[in-house]
Amino acid sequence: MTSSSQQHQTELTRKPDRGRQDRADLDVVLDAMPVGTLSTVVDGRPWVVPMLFCRDGDRLLLHGSTGAGALRHVAAGSPAALSVVHLDGIVVADSTFESSANYRSAVVYGSLSPIEGDEKDAGLRKLSDAILPGRTTEVRPSTGKELAATLAMSMPIVEGSWMVKTRSGPPSEPGDPNVWEGVVPLGLTVGPPEPAPWLSAGVPVPASVRALADGWPAR
Amino acid sequence: MTSSSQQHQTELTRKPDRGRQDRADLDVVLDAMPVGTLSTVVDGRPWVVPMLFCRDGDRLLLHGSTGAGALRHVAAGSPAALSVVHLDGIVVADSTFESSANYRSAVVYGSLSPIEGDEKDAGLRKLSDAILPGRTTEVRPSTGKELAATLAMSMPIVEGSWMVKTRSGPPSEPGDPNVWEGVVPLGLTVGPPEPAPWLSAGVPVPASVRALADGWPAR
Repeated sequence: MTSSSQQHQTELTRKPDRGRQDRADLDVVLDAMPVGTLSTVVDGRPWVVPMLFCRDGDRLLLHGSTGAGALRHVAAGSPAALSVVHLDGIVVADSTFESSANYRSAVVYGSLSPIEGDEKDAGLRKLSDAILPGRTTEVRPSTGKELAATLAMSMPIVEGSWMVKTRSGPPSEPGDPNVWEGVVPLGLTVGPPEPAPWLSAGVPVPASVRALADGWPAR
Repeated sequence: MTSSSQQHQTELTRKPDRGRQDRADLDVVLDAMPVGTLSTVVDGRPWVVPMLFCRDGDRLLLHGSTGAGALRHVAAGSPAALSVVHLDGIVVADSTFESSANYRSAVVYGSLSPIEGDEKDAGLRKLSDAILPGRTTEVRPSTGKELAATLAMSMPIVEGSWMVKTRSGPPSEPGDPNVWEGVVPLGLTVGPPEPAPWLSAGVPVPASVRALADGWPAR
């Protein structure tokens, strides 16, 4: 994401001609972590909020509070973008200009729509299970009051309205072989589950949590 | 970032009355990782790109290619926002509604300005050294051609035009002590430096890379 890769990095080139492989690339990036940045426009200015989300086939699912005014504005169909970025490493070259970063990033452009009625609970369950697979089978169903307090939203993934960009590997151009160049890799790790302090002794860790702790992402 | 915390999460509440402590909170979040999401408005629609950045006192520094048209648009003073989000854990409650995520997030609103003249090289060096401290002392200076190909930009951090939101700890409301609740912690880790394949044998790892590999973030 520094100079040597900026031509690719900063030009928003939508890719209507990209085929299945690239859509698969998009899905891999979207599925790698359940947090992104939702951007929209309010009064001509950017409005931005980090959001939990998941991909459900050809749509994104998000949720929020029905009390959040700006989010309702987004859900009413304003143009929006959901972006994710994973920093995978610092690319060290023999000049700052050729140094870079390894990353996976995606932006999906579109409009959010509220999910209503029977589909709402199902959408929220999908979002929960994307973050912590199987959890919805371990807990009680959401109550009507809880559902009413939650804004469930979807954004279709439309061909030609998304981009995925990744960089990996060492510097693009080999330099002097006697000057160190390479990559400092970065990665997200999951730690051992931390029980809440009020738990009784010996309460078993549920299967969903054990699975998450054993592998990230869970999907 | 799920239901129980959404009132805080999704309402964009700018905090003009927050004092020094909160500004310090902002700095901690901004300094934790050098990648964020730059959002602006192009033709009434959101335009979003992941960017390397750093905080330099009361401003953010970013860079891009001078060939990137939309980025020049941003650098020309369009309203913009730089956001960062770090996912620190999955908060597991006894209902999906009370489940949440631990995170640190920040959004800085403002306008980008290009950095020109004598300040340009200095700004780019600060950005490089924020990502990999000390690296600029180990490599040759940037050439005039490299500087000309790079767009250096700054965004002031103005009181009242930023927000920082964090969540930590177990579920907000204790549930049944016989049902497991808690947190699955997530964290960014740095791996051992990976030399480029063309390096000669025995080329030492430079001090900047050793320091980064020993602790992240480096700052």
